[in-house]
Amino acid sequence: MADLERLSFNQMTTGKAPLRDVLEACAKSKVQWIGPWRHAIGENPGEWGRAFRDAGLKVSSLCRGGMFPAATAEERRKRIEDNLRAIDEASAIGTELLVLVNGPAPDKDIAGARQMVRDGIGSILDHARASGVRLGIEPLHPMFAADRSVIVTLGEANTIAEQFGFDTVGVVIDVYHVWWDPQVYPEIARTGKRIFGFHVSDWIVPLPDTLMGRGLMGDGVIELSRLREAVDRAGYTGPIEVEIFNEALWSQPVDEIVSSVVERFRSQV
Amino acid sequence: MADLERLSFNQMTTGKAPLRDVLEACAKSKVQWIGPWRHAIGENPGEWGRAFRDAGLKVSSLCRGGMFPAATAEERRKRIEDNLRAIDEASAIGTELLVLVNGPAPDKDIAGARQMVRDGIGSILDHARASGVRLGIEPLHPMFAADRSVIVTLGEANTIAEQFGFDTVGVVIDVYHVWWDPQVYPEIARTGKRIFGFHVSDWIVPLPDTLMGRGLMGDGVIELSRLREAVDRAGYTGPIEVEIFNEALWSQPVDEIVSSVVERFRSQV
Repeated sequence: MADLERLSFNQMTTGKAPLRDVLEACAKSKVQWIGPWRHAIGENPGEWGRAFRDAGLKVSSLCRGGMFPAATAEERRKRIEDNLRAIDEASAIGTELLVLVNGPAPDKDIAGARQMVRDGIGSILDHARASGVRLGIEPLHPMFAADRSVIVTLGEANTIAEQFGFDTVGVVIDVYHVWWDPQVYPEIARTGKRIFGFHVSDWIVPLPDTLMGRGLMGDGVIELSRLREAVDRAGYTGPIEVEIFNEALWSQPVDEIVSSVVERFRSQV
Repeated sequence: MADLERLSFNQMTTGKAPLRDVLEACAKSKVQWIGPWRHAIGENPGEWGRAFRDAGLKVSSLCRGGMFPAATAEERRKRIEDNLRAIDEASAIGTELLVLVNGPAPDKDIAGARQMVRDGIGSILDHARASGVRLGIEPLHPMFAADRSVIVTLGEANTIAEQFGFDTVGVVIDVYHVWWDPQVYPEIARTGKRIFGFHVSDWIVPLPDTLMGRGLMGDGVIELSRLREAVDRAGYTGPIEVEIFNEALWSQPVDEIVSSVVERFRSQV
């Protein structure tokens, strides 16, 4: 089983609970890492950075940059600017990693949109490097190809990442998004030192909902230990984020959610 | 645009309407091909074969065999027997193609289940060849990996098919299942003469439902003409099945559904 010191609690696992409550519940449960989202950080990334440090929490990543493809050059430029701000926010809260969810195509040309993702990452690379922030391309499950991310396989994420320096551009592997892939094990080995983050949850059968249907580790069909061991073997030693979008889970008190996550992380990951 | 002579009307596009009504609506609309399902054929495949011929309809395929993985050898043997019956039914209704939807894993071992699919196809190969029935492996969308098919990429379907003779084992390409894949065009070229069937529909945004959310061609984001041209270029000249699971469509009269399908096939495929 994975060392509990590697557990990072992604804020979205508590849904709409205030970040302050999540922070306190994590600190009380001896969780050492937290993964906040930009909408919760708002205009005060420096303050939040201090609050995390004061609570003894390290920040595994900031979710999320990306969303590069757009119909016009002007709109793509705005997306780039937003990503530059996201890099500043990541730096201010004290994390080394910005997670990139790369967005859907503005039209039917999915190959063209993938090129826009490559171009977008190229446009923010220098600022990321200068800020000490690494960019983690997160491939989403192919069921999100039309509305959230044109990057839907670990292989494609690797192909894009390899066009840039491995000090700055890598991949975030989330088991929910990649478990089905016949190429997942060779692709994890290929990612190697470019594995910048690792997320766990589970795939429930039948799936309650594409976005909101994730389960707690152990409630579904994903071979969690096998995937975690493959990621370890590829050389990744960093935090393991638990990120679960699930309405039933979200309806519980924050303390109980954190306790459940700690228990399942211990027994399943 | 594709020649209307290639249009095949898959029975499920009308949902639960009686097969006799679908047959009559197709004949009336000058549709030349039909794709029936086993549950509708029942115990009388020979009679249905005559009915299709009398109506001037050719049968593009029978849906479906497959579902090979199971927890015990005894249960896997039963699945094999059911596939042998499906081959006999395909032969009796006068189609050269049995579509294989290969089933989920009985446990968390998805790689083991993929091996069961290969073994299952190997077990029915001789009977298929002797019966003049070809086996078409249909990769499903990865969102069905846990409950309908462990074969979820065209690449994996090709890898399995290539272990058998190209006269008997090939692939059925359905745009709804493969459109998202960054490797879809090289894999279509790789499939080549093993393309035994081609299915069209569309991916609506937002997706109303994983199973029942397909749209009429033109209502979604799939590059239909580009995919159809790639399949043509790979050498496929056979029927193009329209297979749409959609409650709203199913609620319409059968004649109207067939008319809509003909119109969209003309303008979009």
